[in-house]
Amino acid sequence: MTILDGKKISNDIKDEITEVVAQMKANGEKTPHLAAVIVGEDGASLTYVGSKVRACARVGFESTLVQLPETITQQQLLAKIDELNNDPEIDGFIVQLPLPKHIDTQKVLLAVDPKKDVDGFHPENFGKLALDMETFIPATPYGIMELLRRYDINTSGKHTVVIGRSHIVGRPISILMSRKGQPGDSTVTLTHSRTNDLASFTKNADIVISALGVPNFLTADMVKQGAVIIDVGITRVPDNAVTKGYVITGDVDYQAVSEKASFITPVPGGVGPMTIAMLLQNTLLARQRSVH
Amino acid sequence: MTILDGKKISNDIKDEITEVVAQMKANGEKTPHLAAVIVGEDGASLTYVGSKVRACARVGFESTLVQLPETITQQQLLAKIDELNNDPEIDGFIVQLPLPKHIDTQKVLLAVDPKKDVDGFHPENFGKLALDMETFIPATPYGIMELLRRYDINTSGKHTVVIGRSHIVGRPISILMSRKGQPGDSTVTLTHSRTNDLASFTKNADIVISALGVPNFLTADMVKQGAVIIDVGITRVPDNAVTKGYVITGDVDYQAVSEKASFITPVPGGVGPMTIAMLLQNTLLARQRSVH
Repeated sequence: MTILDGKKISNDIKDEITEVVAQMKANGEKTPHLAAVIVGEDGASLTYVGSKVRACARVGFESTLVQLPETITQQQLLAKIDELNNDPEIDGFIVQLPLPKHIDTQKVLLAVDPKKDVDGFHPENFGKLALDMETFIPATPYGIMELLRRYDINTSGKHTVVIGRSHIVGRPISILMSRKGQPGDSTVTLTHSRTNDLASFTKNADIVISALGVPNFLTADMVKQGAVIIDVGITRVPDNAVTKGYVITGDVDYQAVSEKASFITPVPGGVGPMTIAMLLQNTLLARQRSVH
Repeated sequence: MTILDGKKISNDIKDEITEVVAQMKANGEKTPHLAAVIVGEDGASLTYVGSKVRACARVGFESTLVQLPETITQQQLLAKIDELNNDPEIDGFIVQLPLPKHIDTQKVLLAVDPKKDVDGFHPENFGKLALDMETFIPATPYGIMELLRRYDINTSGKHTVVIGRSHIVGRPISILMSRKGQPGDSTVTLTHSRTNDLASFTKNADIVISALGVPNFLTADMVKQGAVIIDVGITRVPDNAVTKGYVITGDVDYQAVSEKASFITPVPGGVGPMTIAMLLQNTLLARQRSVH
């Protein structure tokens, strides 16, 4: 069994990006600049945005954190987005979700210039993904593809079962895995809350990608010997034995499943760290595209 | 076994649209106007476009056929599309595919204003489909959904196996069938040329949607008793016994498979006629949206 070490791979990717940026600087070129918009004071969101900003510093990107009050109106937020769309200094930006309830998230995501949409959430970019065109691939599915690629896992003709049909993980990874290419060319089954007898699908899967958010959902009896297991679940489970009061738990019953798996991602340290690395990769791409 | 009568249902839809248009006329409103762009003289393409134009007349739409020579340059074609984008008289238009080899099809489809893209081929519209937003659903998958809806076939929690991952049928129908709602909420497996042991998937399917283009590919031993069979294949098979020299043949070995199926589409007269009805539906929608 091989552990898919997202921490190591994400560091490799960051090192590669650092080198590219150093070369840009040496050539006197503008370096990539990511902006992150956050509305309100949600703890988890602040943590995520904070790590994104730190990751920018790590690779030599410029970054701007745009902190807006919970009470901002939709119109004011849209005006801010328009400003970022038109700011030549900013190569790409993200709007940290979730947004407060009085804001129409769809309208906000549609307002982001697809050329700066490094999260890949704009329908134009998502459509390009589904139509095999060049685009910004959303960071989490992009990170999964990159893990499969760097560990040279053959996906062609394999049966991949995806658990969960969310817009940010399940649906895009189900499309990516069935596209032509490597990784890809998989026969993909997308399962979800309405699926009957989920285990009958996972038991026959060569690759299981779980993005459900239910701790320890996928048990050893649900997977076949030698399967590749990708765990996207990140749930905070209360645990008084640790100082911060919770542990990050995946969808996969790791101990038991890892005994049957050929490859498996740990949680934490698997898909999670890859997400930020791929956001940086998309930002670099946005910078490079705006040059050409 | 029930035959899914696409000819009848498409006529019902055309009758419904005719009534809406008659009411528009009675109210002194502008009626829907579809334009179809065709480049060159390909026989099959001319036939398809011809039926689209006739269908417009049937329901009371205005229509414009834009016939362009095979030798047109890409720039000239893009200029024509720009003209249609900006013509307030035209509510929606299509560019008949395939285009000649010297034309970049992707560039052309990207040039169509998403608001007039009644084929639903623009990435922005395709992305909206994948992200559960309102859009123009491409006519063939839309026609399949409408057949399932009007025959009240329960798809929730069923296992749907799609054969073929094309941009115009396989991929969009695989997404639509897995979206929330009815029809939808299916567990969908998308199979294709790289799939190993395809029969092992189709044998377990409650619903099979075949969009492969290989005559009589799906045989009775590949489907389970009571399955719903949707045949999107339309292949011209040479046949000297008939005057036109060919017969239209589907992907499904109809006689044998229909004995096991609970519902089945014939070819011709199944999905085919639905496609034009849904193009009309999208054109009506484009007109209604431009009013609101």
